[in-house]
Amino acid sequence: MVKGVYDELLKDKPKNHFTVGINDDVTHTSLDIDHDFKVKRSTINCMFYGLGSDGTVGANKNSIKIIGQTTDNFVQGYFVYDSKKAGAQTISHLRFGPEPIYSTYLIDKADFIASHQFNFIEKYNMIADLKQGGTFLLNSPYSKEEIWNKLPKKMQKGIIKKEANFYIIDATKVAQEANLGKRTNTVLQTCFFAISGILPKDEAIQKIKDAIVKSYSHKGEKVVQMNFNAVDASLANLEKVDYPKEITSDKKLKSAMTNAPEGFVKEVLEVILSGKGDELPVSAFPVDGTFPMGTTQYEKSGIADTIPIWDDIDLCTQCNKCVAICPHAAIRAKVVAKDELYQAPLTLKSVSAKGRPFEKNDVYVLQVSPEDCTGCDLCVEICPAESKEIENFKAINMHRKLDHDVVENKNWDYFVELPNYDRTELTITNVKGAQFLDPLFEFSGACSGCGETPYIKLLTQLYGDSIIIANATGCSSIYGGNLPTTPYKTNEFGRGPAWANSLFEDNAEFGLGIQLALTKKQEIAINLLKSLELLVGSELVKTILDNPEKTEAEKKQKFADIDKLKDTLAIIDNNEDANKLNQLTEYLRKKAVWVLGGDGWAYDIGYGGVDHVLASGENINILVMDTEVYSNTGGQTSKATPLGASAKFAIAGKRTPKKNLALQAVSYGNVYVAQIAMGAKDIQTQKAIQEAAEYDGPSLIVAYSHCGEHGYDLKHGVTQQRKAVETGYWPLFRFDPTKPKGKKFRLDSKAPAAPLEDFMYNETRFTRVVKENAELGKELLEQAQEQVDIKWERLELFRGM
Amino acid sequence: MVKGVYDELLKDKPKNHFTVGINDDVTHTSLDIDHDFKVKRSTINCMFYGLGSDGTVGANKNSIKIIGQTTDNFVQGYFVYDSKKAGAQTISHLRFGPEPIYSTYLIDKADFIASHQFNFIEKYNMIADLKQGGTFLLNSPYSKEEIWNKLPKKMQKGIIKKEANFYIIDATKVAQEANLGKRTNTVLQTCFFAISGILPKDEAIQKIKDAIVKSYSHKGEKVVQMNFNAVDASLANLEKVDYPKEITSDKKLKSAMTNAPEGFVKEVLEVILSGKGDELPVSAFPVDGTFPMGTTQYEKSGIADTIPIWDDIDLCTQCNKCVAICPHAAIRAKVVAKDELYQAPLTLKSVSAKGRPFEKNDVYVLQVSPEDCTGCDLCVEICPAESKEIENFKAINMHRKLDHDVVENKNWDYFVELPNYDRTELTITNVKGAQFLDPLFEFSGACSGCGETPYIKLLTQLYGDSIIIANATGCSSIYGGNLPTTPYKTNEFGRGPAWANSLFEDNAEFGLGIQLALTKKQEIAINLLKSLELLVGSELVKTILDNPEKTEAEKKQKFADIDKLKDTLAIIDNNEDANKLNQLTEYLRKKAVWVLGGDGWAYDIGYGGVDHVLASGENINILVMDTEVYSNTGGQTSKATPLGASAKFAIAGKRTPKKNLALQAVSYGNVYVAQIAMGAKDIQTQKAIQEAAEYDGPSLIVAYSHCGEHGYDLKHGVTQQRKAVETGYWPLFRFDPTKPKGKKFRLDSKAPAAPLEDFMYNETRFTRVVKENAELGKELLEQAQEQVDIKWERLELFRGM
Repeated sequence: MVKGVYDELLKDKPKNHFTVGINDDVTHTSLDIDHDFKVKRSTINCMFYGLGSDGTVGANKNSIKIIGQTTDNFVQGYFVYDSKKAGAQTISHLRFGPEPIYSTYLIDKADFIASHQFNFIEKYNMIADLKQGGTFLLNSPYSKEEIWNKLPKKMQKGIIKKEANFYIIDATKVAQEANLGKRTNTVLQTCFFAISGILPKDEAIQKIKDAIVKSYSHKGEKVVQMNFNAVDASLANLEKVDYPKEITSDKKLKSAMTNAPEGFVKEVLEVILSGKGDELPVSAFPVDGTFPMGTTQYEKSGIADTIPIWDDIDLCTQCNKCVAICPHAAIRAKVVAKDELYQAPLTLKSVSAKGRPFEKNDVYVLQVSPEDCTGCDLCVEICPAESKEIENFKAINMHRKLDHDVVENKNWDYFVELPNYDRTELTITNVKGAQFLDPLFEFSGACSGCGETPYIKLLTQLYGDSIIIANATGCSSIYGGNLPTTPYKTNEFGRGPAWANSLFEDNAEFGLGIQLALTKKQEIAINLLKSLELLVGSELVKTILDNPEKTEAEKKQKFADIDKLKDTLAIIDNNEDANKLNQLTEYLRKKAVWVLGGDGWAYDIGYGGVDHVLASGENINILVMDTEVYSNTGGQTSKATPLGASAKFAIAGKRTPKKNLALQAVSYGNVYVAQIAMGAKDIQTQKAIQEAAEYDGPSLIVAYSHCGEHGYDLKHGVTQQRKAVETGYWPLFRFDPTKPKGKKFRLDSKAPAAPLEDFMYNETRFTRVVKENAELGKELLEQAQEQVDIKWERLELFRGM
Repeated sequence: MVKGVYDELLKDKPKNHFTVGINDDVTHTSLDIDHDFKVKRSTINCMFYGLGSDGTVGANKNSIKIIGQTTDNFVQGYFVYDSKKAGAQTISHLRFGPEPIYSTYLIDKADFIASHQFNFIEKYNMIADLKQGGTFLLNSPYSKEEIWNKLPKKMQKGIIKKEANFYIIDATKVAQEANLGKRTNTVLQTCFFAISGILPKDEAIQKIKDAIVKSYSHKGEKVVQMNFNAVDASLANLEKVDYPKEITSDKKLKSAMTNAPEGFVKEVLEVILSGKGDELPVSAFPVDGTFPMGTTQYEKSGIADTIPIWDDIDLCTQCNKCVAICPHAAIRAKVVAKDELYQAPLTLKSVSAKGRPFEKNDVYVLQVSPEDCTGCDLCVEICPAESKEIENFKAINMHRKLDHDVVENKNWDYFVELPNYDRTELTITNVKGAQFLDPLFEFSGACSGCGETPYIKLLTQLYGDSIIIANATGCSSIYGGNLPTTPYKTNEFGRGPAWANSLFEDNAEFGLGIQLALTKKQEIAINLLKSLELLVGSELVKTILDNPEKTEAEKKQKFADIDKLKDTLAIIDNNEDANKLNQLTEYLRKKAVWVLGGDGWAYDIGYGGVDHVLASGENINILVMDTEVYSNTGGQTSKATPLGASAKFAIAGKRTPKKNLALQAVSYGNVYVAQIAMGAKDIQTQKAIQEAAEYDGPSLIVAYSHCGEHGYDLKHGVTQQRKAVETGYWPLFRFDPTKPKGKKFRLDSKAPAAPLEDFMYNETRFTRVVKENAELGKELLEQAQEQVDIKWERLELFRGM
């Protein structure tokens, strides 16, 4: 969508045309709000700002139970969050009081406000909603002496004016020291009860501990005890800030977007992102619903506490594995001529580029974007360049973001402007080479540590300028196209993936329809070109039609030839065919439809369509990101869920084996099929995607995707993928119908070398079952092991194909 | 549904409460019809009575084209038929004339009426709709001298009163002599043009021949020439009847049903069946839509021209293969004590019963029901008892029905009253033994020669008293539950299959829901029984709960024990649990859900659900009757359609291979899977059904079903099934998860012993492709052969499982 359209749309609007409530300035049917209207309230109102998956919502649900069950108060909770994945803002609205609560609206005057995330102070003016004399609790890495000067001016002003009781706690530190990792909810809930005085402190603490037992006992006694410790440490670390009654800061609140371009992005998208979308008038929205792409780059949500720093440029092997595995495209590598760095910040590191096709003067630069990084650690975990001298030291290591963000943000800003290496020169058939390609999918709203997004990113790096994506509803449609911003973008030539999401159930059919339309358009374009041969010139027609577009060089040539064709067509007067062709030159290129989705779609709800596409014989590609559970809706069991795993609707452990989608597809014989796991064998992943793209028929790739629903810190996602492969749980293979008999089915991983529990018992989804019922757990493990054995026996047979 | 309910419903109605038009005597919102209303008509009106698939409708469509394109007349056609399969009545209404036709209603005064089926004269008073001086054309096996006395009295009266021009032709004979088999349409169309004088005779004949070329050229030149010959022979055989002006017959019109019981069946079902359903008042229909079952037995549609006669009782091996293959359960075998025949008609044949468990005095009786037989010939084709002395003579042979019906109908009436052999004594694990079991699915509206119904019939013979059928929409839902009559029935103890049809797309899910409800009800019943142990008696409880119901004897015992339980429960007063259990005793029995449907459902539209059921691990059975095409809607391609076959949406030949549904299911590992073809190996079919029923988990049976859509006379269905197996096109196999490793996958047919064309080129669906494009045909045959080879290679690998 051209930016100008929005400018046009907004040009007659007053600069500040936003009001509160629905303002339908198109049909003029909305009602005005009476801002003076007030109801008498006997309730205590509390607001909690958190991040999705940080436990804030869960802790509030516990608080509701404690207050409701152990006091005479009525209690109400409402949780505001959007469809973004873990890591987006949540606001919990909690009311309680002696009278029944009929408030069906959000809190706007709070007695208590807590910010469970420190960096929110720079983004949201939370104090605005605080009552006079109310309490504000902040999760702060700074001490009570340091904190005042770190606040933005607006917040200082608000705290002083409201005469707020201001408390802080370094919940992140307390949680870490109590071995809770990033889960700060117990710490902050304890502080809430300690300050709010709803219950006598000792009683409140006991209730919290009871609730902990209820919530976490299925995760094991260790987790319970860790939370108990956190409760005790919380009270010891909670501090009241004795702030001066004067403003000492001139820090402004950060805008919701960084470097947002003027026009629609700034005036509409940024407003929505700042949480004020409700204030936009109807006229602000485009009539056809089209939104600009590549806008996640302006979000800079900066949710990481720690970020990777390229500590040792010489230890680094330049393998680019860190770049490949990053779920958010937040760490990238470029190779540029040394000269390109002459105006670079002195802090920007670089090192002589290794390997072909790089020249003597080329340097390798590895750079993180601190504000786009989510701190998942995957890059450091996968880094193979470990120091022999220093323990736990790699070429890249995680560091406190606070200590590096200023410098690295500057580095990043310079880095993004550096040119990309010429695609036609790179060896893109290996992981390293492919990771120098510009990702056309970046900074999505996927969870920190997501196992799905690296596959999509790689697809866009390899084929982004020539693919059309049909995306099933699910995580990938949410982080793939979640308003107001979109992670898909165009490259330096303005070309990028086309992307659309229809429904959950019909995505394969949707993609097939796109494929059929594409084929038809290509046919029309080719016929028009042939019919115009006399006017266009035989040589150009032949060059265009004969170009197989197999290599990047050939692709580049095709682009150039089409440009030439467009120039030629532009000067042909009064020729209807030439006019038509001018609109269809795009279809003289090779293009591919990729149908994307999760296992809930591909194994279950959309399987009828997936199967239909596989049977169609059409040249279309399906990529299933298999998290083995309905991740987007909170972990319901799917046919991809393995035997023995706990998932909603199979909490006590699934009793039926995982469906073998890949082998079902192999039964067609004319379908390219691959089962892959990037964390375990990235080169096999890359080969599979490239073979699927090249295969002239239907392709199916089933990609193992670790997921927060599996129940472990996702920084171990890579390790778990390796174990899944090593134990035979997730065999890697490729079935290529074009290969001769006996070579069609290639097993890319070795026979099981370790027992299944080595993989399973690192994940709560499996250990939970054992915890609840040890005997059943054992039985299911045995059955699961038997399934692995049967699977392998069969795969060995398949080698004969 | 108890018959009494209908009697109750109808008891206050006057005996003849039917009027013309909708008579809503419940809400009283219908409008009366003005029977005196007439419109001026300048059109010629013609009515043609035919049977579905006899070509009458097609011939009329040709006539419309001829009249519309070659004369100045306007022309209109409308074809009345219901959802029944081939073999049901059709009435073609044809109007033409010099003025535009706006008549949006059926013809009620015809200038021309033709009866393309001789036996219709006994069923429909067709003359009632004839104008004064109109023309009546009858397809008659009798000569112009004989015919008058064969007519019913009402028809003679009508012909005389209307001063009708009465023509006859023995179209059946002419068609047979012209090698057109049963296709009489060309003959009768020629007569219509010859008599009606719409066009000069020579011109009309030429037009018919042109139309023949257009309609049949894709079926080959031979078919065209045969139709040409038929045209010429038609003119030679058409005769005008010079009838006496006096009534010589006292024959009455047959009622639409034979021996219909009084009450609802007679007063409602028979009226609907006679074509007068429109005259029923709204109050005649049951409020809840429930219709009585087992009512096809009253239809006696008598559409066969030839029927099988048990010519040689000594040549007969008593193998019961004829009984098994009969699609309509119209030929049956019983073994009874000789004494049972003491009042039998002298014409009823019997012979000493061979084999176990029969005793010296037991006799074997094989009997056809002439009025239920459709004359498909399958029984004779499959009969292995061929005379060594007489050529083309078997134990049973097809004969003109006319010569045998009086005698055989009497025989049948006696035969049906003979007792069934005790199930517990029979060896029902072989075909012969199982075919002595009472079919609880009989005389359905399936096409003559249907390849699907024998499977359903067998299922009801084996398990009819304990199964619940979830039926997908398609042929099997139409012939399985087509109002007003139903082919499913109860046995002598009042037990039979429960049957329901939901939608096309959700049948597997529908069946799964029934299964889950069944399991729950069984659980409740068992718990109630256990809780009532003190009142009911420990021994009875134990006997009921411990009975595995594996053998027929155990089943019988269970029925008896439940009867005993009911008696006991009846005398327990004021016990809520006893009351509850009394309503649930049925669920103390073993019952099974069978999910039935065709390939359009199982491979395509309902496949998502089929897969879901297979993955569920539930004890549920799926039977797919695979005709390899959407048969019910007229032959659209499905994913079961083989490579190289012509089907709608793939007229030029399907380019993708048939989906391997069975092997997809095998990929689960815990699903019992069988691929069967009764015509090729009936014992394997029976074993598969019995193993599926016994397997405690999901089962899938894919059953080859020959079909009229394949394009050949279905009397060769059995031969084609054999060829399908011999050429490797349709491998027979069973995958049984309970068997030890290396024995799970059993190949029940031998490796291909003949080239694929031996099978394919007997069917128009394949030869049509060759005819249209020989080169493509050859290519597709080669590809299909390659598919067979690949399939076999893989099956050989599977033997290792």
